[in-house]
Amino acid sequence: MRLSSISLVLFSSILAAAPADLILSAGRVITMDAQRRIIDNGAVAIAKGRILAVGPRAEIDKHYQAPKRIDRPDAILTPGLINTHTHAPMSLLRGIADDLDLQDWLRKFIFPAEARNVNEEFVRAGTRLAVLEMMLGGTTTYTDMYYFEQAIGDETRKAGMRAVLGQTIIGFPAPDYKTPEDSLAGAEKFIATFKNDPLITPAVAPHAVYTNSTETLKAARALANKHSVPFIIHVSETQQENIDFGMKHDRLTPTMYLESIGALEGRTLFAHMVWARTDDLVVLQRHKVGVSHCPSSNMKLSSGISNVPGMLALNLAVGLGTDGPAGSNNDLDLFEEMDLASKLAKVNTMDPKSMPAKTVFEMATILGAQALGMEKEIGSLEPGKRADLITLSLNSPHAWPAHDPYSMLVFSLKSCDVQDVVIEGKITVENKRPLTLNPVEIRRQAAAIRVKVDVSLK
Amino acid sequence: MRLSSISLVLFSSILAAAPADLILSAGRVITMDAQRRIIDNGAVAIAKGRILAVGPRAEIDKHYQAPKRIDRPDAILTPGLINTHTHAPMSLLRGIADDLDLQDWLRKFIFPAEARNVNEEFVRAGTRLAVLEMMLGGTTTYTDMYYFEQAIGDETRKAGMRAVLGQTIIGFPAPDYKTPEDSLAGAEKFIATFKNDPLITPAVAPHAVYTNSTETLKAARALANKHSVPFIIHVSETQQENIDFGMKHDRLTPTMYLESIGALEGRTLFAHMVWARTDDLVVLQRHKVGVSHCPSSNMKLSSGISNVPGMLALNLAVGLGTDGPAGSNNDLDLFEEMDLASKLAKVNTMDPKSMPAKTVFEMATILGAQALGMEKEIGSLEPGKRADLITLSLNSPHAWPAHDPYSMLVFSLKSCDVQDVVIEGKITVENKRPLTLNPVEIRRQAAAIRVKVDVSLK
Repeated sequence: MRLSSISLVLFSSILAAAPADLILSAGRVITMDAQRRIIDNGAVAIAKGRILAVGPRAEIDKHYQAPKRIDRPDAILTPGLINTHTHAPMSLLRGIADDLDLQDWLRKFIFPAEARNVNEEFVRAGTRLAVLEMMLGGTTTYTDMYYFEQAIGDETRKAGMRAVLGQTIIGFPAPDYKTPEDSLAGAEKFIATFKNDPLITPAVAPHAVYTNSTETLKAARALANKHSVPFIIHVSETQQENIDFGMKHDRLTPTMYLESIGALEGRTLFAHMVWARTDDLVVLQRHKVGVSHCPSSNMKLSSGISNVPGMLALNLAVGLGTDGPAGSNNDLDLFEEMDLASKLAKVNTMDPKSMPAKTVFEMATILGAQALGMEKEIGSLEPGKRADLITLSLNSPHAWPAHDPYSMLVFSLKSCDVQDVVIEGKITVENKRPLTLNPVEIRRQAAAIRVKVDVSLK
Repeated sequence: MRLSSISLVLFSSILAAAPADLILSAGRVITMDAQRRIIDNGAVAIAKGRILAVGPRAEIDKHYQAPKRIDRPDAILTPGLINTHTHAPMSLLRGIADDLDLQDWLRKFIFPAEARNVNEEFVRAGTRLAVLEMMLGGTTTYTDMYYFEQAIGDETRKAGMRAVLGQTIIGFPAPDYKTPEDSLAGAEKFIATFKNDPLITPAVAPHAVYTNSTETLKAARALANKHSVPFIIHVSETQQENIDFGMKHDRLTPTMYLESIGALEGRTLFAHMVWARTDDLVVLQRHKVGVSHCPSSNMKLSSGISNVPGMLALNLAVGLGTDGPAGSNNDLDLFEEMDLASKLAKVNTMDPKSMPAKTVFEMATILGAQALGMEKEIGSLEPGKRADLITLSLNSPHAWPAHDPYSMLVFSLKSCDVQDVVIEGKITVENKRPLTLNPVEIRRQAAAIRVKVDVSLK
């Protein structure tokens, strides 16, 4: 014992510390690794965008040195959060239409506002606003489905944010492309632009089964598989969707139909999946389809309550999504979605043990990564993974006293507690200050575009 | 027209501006008065703890001058928020026991932790922590039911916070009094201490129908009426409560039983009221009983979903409550409760028009005041009312762009957007900095007491 301790000391004093680009330390590190290790006084060493090592601060400091470090003894350090479903540029439509009947909301407000306003400039400004809000709130990866996805990718990359971006394919004229054929061709160009990008994962995103023909859905699947990118689609968000679809398709559910046409052969993410039958869930299990659970949206739009505990019992990969911030939600805050996901399941099952804090934090991190097919790259703090992580200040009274860390993360801490954000090894937010985006400019642009939205509604 | 304008100008230039103690101005003032006026570039003049005038900033500045002013052109100014139900000192037990079966939660964690830890020192430290959190989050009045209420009143008054404080009456030995008789006598002393206090409204708070005898409930009612103070009680929080009570009391509901023994004759507040029949609600309507709706708690503890839209349809005064911050909720954040109250009702009724943002903001302000029988004193910005108000910074991206103000308040803004807090005309938080409480000291005390809690659970 004694000899080996001495030789270890000799060994480490002889060896120079290895170089890293960045070291972060915190009072507590929540790794979300396979053992769900929690390290008090922990640290993470980062180089070339990836995690070199995670461990006790004393060990990391002995073995690594870096030109830049962030030390937060009074903070929790966790993997960055993963938003598995949104429509980022809709941030500019935030608050234009709430508390409305679903059809009025879409047909009198959202669709006209989009038809009159959504162009590349709008999409760029809305993306910058959404990415700023998400980054400041601890999101390091987001998943999008919208129009002009090329511009969204460009703005997201410039901001240093990670994203899975799905170019929308829809069976009626959209702001960017007028036909499904054009949007499929556009999606292929978009994929070519971002293929092998370290931050952007391009995807093909047919809107839904009821807005696309079988032919288009098959073509979208083929395109996704040709380039090994995800296929993302809204499925069974409302009961009406299932009823209407079943009437036209011999009582098939949207899920069974997608399976029957081969659309689940490959990496797939379903958004919402509120009205799922158990046999639908078994289909998802068979094809390893990921699910994005969006509790705020499902509640606010009265869509219904998704059977998430059932999905988790079947080992489905279920992540959390905010959905778009205009009507279906009015912010992009995964701390709110975590809190809601747990509370909604508890009141729905009438079981307070349902969806405990740890499970919900898994959904916001490693399970969300798995839902996107990216669990080898992101979602936990492990050597070799991409360096996406956040620190959360414990400097507010709602964080005192500190008992269970998962309870804190899910039920007490808030997006405004996020102190630092690192994505792909780069600091994008330091001590609550965004480093890659200009809030003053973003706000000015949002205000300018708002006027056009308001006028268009009169 | 022209002449009268001129005479108005002459009149105001001749008259010196009237003295005020404090003037606040903001980009937008949400009054919550009878007309629900919203004033762009508005201001509020305050003197001797009360509101002198509310109007356009130009008018207020013409007619009033004050030695202190706070100008927030980039903020919303609203009435302070009202928390109609909590157990403040339980803040020190935050996070010790989550995601548990209800009986395990109470019997293995909360009751033993309270029995071993709750004394006057604990209550004082816990109250300071809770009041700090509530104040920073925009709450200006809170309603409490706990033990050692005298100490809670003392700490609350020292912090400059407004509260309705109910001394608990319970049919088994409690940390402060060992019998209901002793606690009734203690409640009377407590009432005498705080009677006519500008900040503290004392109340009598029998815990529930199932933890008190008929005799005790009648005595509690008599004591409340003798001193014209509120009678506060948990009612029908769980279905089990109704079932068990009905079995013992010839199928009476707790509400009908309370009416039958005369316990609703006077100012009354029911906390929770989750399992209410329509005939129960008619009883509440007849006796003008206020209700505290606690969506976080009802969801987190799997209590059920309260029929709030039904209560509002019967014109009941329904306010919002956080419940205690240990297990039933893990924070004291009315912005979260507003968001939840709307979303929970929408998904429960499957009607997205249910509980619109404006209605929910009424619950957090003027309706909450009415539930407490204090609508003539607080809950809106009107001349003569007590000066309880807050400003909310619009300086975060989740607040951009600014469309409907009620949607913003309920669905987008967060407790950390609260910038200034004024209670009884005194600034208690200025630019997010607490002026009446010492966060460093409060945190140190919370950490010291935490150790005792943890040890007691082993």
